[in-house]
Amino acid sequence: MNDLLVEGKQILDSQTFSKLLGAKLVALSKKYAELSLPIKDSFKQNYGFVHGGVISYLADNCLTFAGASILGHCVTSEYKINYLMPAMGKELVAKSTVVSFSLRQAVCECKIYAVDHSKESLVAIAQGTIVRIDMEQLK
Amino acid sequence: MNDLLVEGKQILDSQTFSKLLGAKLVALSKKYAELSLPIKDSFKQNYGFVHGGVISYLADNCLTFAGASILGHCVTSEYKINYLMPAMGKELVAKSTVVSFSLRQAVCECKIYAVDHSKESLVAIAQGTIVRIDMEQLK
Amino acid sequence: MNDLLVEGKQILDSQTFSKLLGAKLVALSKKYAELSLPIKDSFKQNYGFVHGGVISYLADNCLTFAGASILGHCVTSEYKINYLMPAMGKELVAKSTVVSFSLRQAVCECKIYAVDHSKESLVAIAQGTIVRIDMEQLK
Amino acid sequence: MNDLLVEGKQILDSQTFSKLLGAKLVALSKKYAELSLPIKDSFKQNYGFVHGGVISYLADNCLTFAGASILGHCVTSEYKINYLMPAMGKELVAKSTVVSFSLRQAVCECKIYAVDHSKESLVAIAQGTIVRIDMEQLK
Repeated sequence: MNDLLVEGKQILDSQTFSKLLGAKLVALSKKYAELSLPIKDSFKQNYGFVHGGVISYLADNCLTFAGASILGHCVTSEYKINYLMPAMGKELVAKSTVVSFSLRQAVCECKIYAVDHSKESLVAIAQGTIVRIDMEQLK
Repeated sequence: MNDLLVEGKQILDSQTFSKLLGAKLVALSKKYAELSLPIKDSFKQNYGFVHGGVISYLADNCLTFAGASILGHCVTSEYKINYLMPAMGKELVAKSTVVSFSLRQAVCECKIYAVDHSKESLVAIAQGTIVRIDMEQLK
Repeated sequence: MNDLLVEGKQILDSQTFSKLLGAKLVALSKKYAELSLPIKDSFKQNYGFVHGGVISYLADNCLTFAGASILGHCVTSEYKINYLMPAMGKELVAKSTVVSFSLRQAVCECKIYAVDHSKESLVAIAQGTIVRIDMEQLK
Repeated sequence: MNDLLVEGKQILDSQTFSKLLGAKLVALSKKYAELSLPIKDSFKQNYGFVHGGVISYLADNCLTFAGASILGHCVTSEYKINYLMPAMGKELVAKSTVVSFSLRQAVCECKIYAVDHSKESLVAIAQGTIVRIDMEQLK
């Protein structure tokens, strides 16, 4: 396991919301992050599909991890997501790539898949801006 | 309590994810929806603020309720969110308005506030498209 | 005419693309900008309506002027636009407001109207991030 | 030249705004569109770079052509764009792909490059929704 992935897993562990949902960091390397999230009964909206908020959470978090692989301490400034089809199955997987970056920010894209047995369906795509934060500002 | 609000509360009740998080439908009338969400310790990201995914969930859901007040059965097709400041406090409140609509879709905007004691801070704004669904298609 | 508006008009004048299209800065004050653009025959798409690119240009520029009223030298980092109905008429008018800002960036929203005789129709809404630029970096 | 490209060139020809700017349809096939636009002096903003409105026009139009390759008659419903760096050079090139589609809409992504001599720089990325239109509605 590379150092980035080890550090990334510790950061994910310190996110109480990610623990509540059960997200796992599958991969983290320069410019790339991948998260997975087993689908639970408690993730549904009123039509029985996975709630968009769950998909958005995963997209947002994956965009931030991709950005963090380049920027270090950072937060999501903004993003946009298109839902492509209802999400069902065993697990969600998000894969995010850094498209462009400067000292202060990274623009990333993310694809979110629903996985059921061997079938992987693209259920959403997202695009957003991750900005470096100055840890001094948070104190 | 108006009929829309009564029906809306039943719909929110049938979303297992909304129950997991604890969201409440505060208001629902033609072209307007308001949701509140008490902030829990299990909602945090790694810097101790409310996770963006929680804010996105609330924005997404509130946009959909606003759209549903006009369209009936519907889902969020896409939205964009800008986070404005770290969210902390007792509660999140989302307020969404329908800006424009046709038979098939509604474009809505949403403001999300963090409330602490008497102070209300605007922490995010969102804009998105809600599309009517044909219930026959879901069967 | 306030100083901001005077300076804003000079900046618009120095944008060759804005001169090509014929945009006018109608108002500029702290946190608010308004642009107008007489509709020409050369602004159409294939169905005879104003091309989305014209509307996007006006939204983008108006968002930047609103941001500049607070930030000074700046550029648009990103924005999202929803087209609400086909745009026709005599003139387009864009009105943008700063929703939130920090030292480095401003988040703004913008409404774009098509005006025909006395009737004003909301044809698009946009939301975006304007970032301050360091003039030293441009040299 | 395939039939789609021939038809696409006629549609671009009928857009007076595209003629004003000088856009060319380079490629059009199922799920893919490519437009180019020679950069003129009349395309600038106040810092001397290509105006964001020009880049947005090209992204918007390229997204629509990609969607049209699947949907036929259609318009852009919404999109989001991130500007990545100042655009300069001889020419802009936009390349758009359909990521997902249904009977009524297509979700597309687009990359916009600035080309100078042999160098191609990615200057913006966009993501948006293209919706089919019923020609009867336009009459």
